[in-house]
Amino acid sequence: MIIIGEKINGSIPSAAKAIAERDEAYIRELARKQSESGADYLDVNAGTPPDIERETLAWLIGLVQDEVDTPICIDSSNPETILEMIPLVKKPGMINSVSDEANKCERLFPHVASGEWKIIALTCDDRGIPAAPDRKFEIAGAIMKKADSFGIAQDRIFFDALVNTVGTTPLAQVSFTEASRRIKEAFPGVHLTSGLSNISFGMPCRKAINQCFLTLAMNSGLDSAIMDPTNSDMRAALYATQVLLALDEDCVDYLSAYRGGLFGVPKKP
Amino acid sequence: MIIIGEKINGSIPSAAKAIAERDEAYIRELARKQSESGADYLDVNAGTPPDIERETLAWLIGLVQDEVDTPICIDSSNPETILEMIPLVKKPGMINSVSDEANKCERLFPHVASGEWKIIALTCDDRGIPAAPDRKFEIAGAIMKKADSFGIAQDRIFFDALVNTVGTTPLAQVSFTEASRRIKEAFPGVHLTSGLSNISFGMPCRKAINQCFLTLAMNSGLDSAIMDPTNSDMRAALYATQVLLALDEDCVDYLSAYRGGLFGVPKKP
Repeated sequence: MIIIGEKINGSIPSAAKAIAERDEAYIRELARKQSESGADYLDVNAGTPPDIERETLAWLIGLVQDEVDTPICIDSSNPETILEMIPLVKKPGMINSVSDEANKCERLFPHVASGEWKIIALTCDDRGIPAAPDRKFEIAGAIMKKADSFGIAQDRIFFDALVNTVGTTPLAQVSFTEASRRIKEAFPGVHLTSGLSNISFGMPCRKAINQCFLTLAMNSGLDSAIMDPTNSDMRAALYATQVLLALDEDCVDYLSAYRGGLFGVPKKP
Repeated sequence: MIIIGEKINGSIPSAAKAIAERDEAYIRELARKQSESGADYLDVNAGTPPDIERETLAWLIGLVQDEVDTPICIDSSNPETILEMIPLVKKPGMINSVSDEANKCERLFPHVASGEWKIIALTCDDRGIPAAPDRKFEIAGAIMKKADSFGIAQDRIFFDALVNTVGTTPLAQVSFTEASRRIKEAFPGVHLTSGLSNISFGMPCRKAINQCFLTLAMNSGLDSAIMDPTNSDMRAALYATQVLLALDEDCVDYLSAYRGGLFGVPKKP
């Protein structure tokens, strides 16, 4: 599993406060803790109004790179912002995200076609975020066609079939896993990822739903997740599911994560 | 989901102690707590040497029936013991278990053919507990043939495709779910159940594995489980998985279980 740490994101209130106050120590700690918890990439999202997004992202990226070596996942809905951030990043990381909206693919793909940057591709377009697996798959096909035309290899694309909120869309999980399976079947080289926690929006005890969703999504081929790697319950679900899906030979990762205190540490009484 | 409470079992050290000391209050509490936590049946297993099994089971059954109305699941590997216990039970419950070993089906089926007793059927025979899904399925077929010959309806049979321990059998989950799916496909009226916790035997942080296994097994059609209903993490996984599999319309069960404190109660600081 390739883990993209989600915590440096201005849409999270505590991170928004740290960003507004330019609290360097807080951001550095988010970077360090997520890296120590096994994040393979650190998502960096300013979450600010457009007029200060670039300056804010540049500040965040500088801090994170100064604190840890973990590659960065530049997160912005504006392709122009992403293109301005790329030169600031020391080594190729991820771009979050392209979709089939407007000219996102056309703007971004030429600039990353030849490098090592990975690309998170969302199954939405100018008509919005579809709930039906057919439409999710159709959009993925449109994006892959564009990626192909720029010679971008499948294994650099991480498809996120944008899970809906299960409280309002009862088939959210079913549609997500069906779309993910079909995408992987049609484009076997791609990765499958998910911003997991959207599924539980508005529900109580979100972690229960998020954990079970991670398990079901991995069962359908998810090999990456945008998640909080510092949450020990989520890590426990991740390592346990790898064991159950026979993806962790001799339970080596499970046992070493447990021994390293990454999950299952006894709670203080 | 039909939940069979597993805690009144002499193979669990704390229950064994209570049984040895004839600690009525302890057994009554196990019965009451499991019922309050949503158990549909209460498994009762003496876990004693054969010479005192019947007397012990009779004592346990009497106590449980005196404490709660929840139907009993008589649990013994000896069909003669089960047959002796049936008249002591006030209303039809479950028999745990038959298998294709020796003459278990032949001894038990004639006595329960015409009633309402449910039957847990294990996919093992005189050659032992197979790991391969083909063999699990084959044994299920042999048991169903016998059940048919006694006119026992499919919906009275709960198949447990006996999950192996994942620490020693890497494909334990994969084989279990494959066998369960095939059994349900061939005999659509049967229920699928599992003594879930065997999968994590010998592993640290067993609850992480048990929870994820419950989710994956439900995804493959499990509609019953032999489990600890008083464990709030397991209950959380069960209710969350029902939501994710679109088995809980409008999240009614999830929300009412949460509001009733069955899971997700904030931990004391």
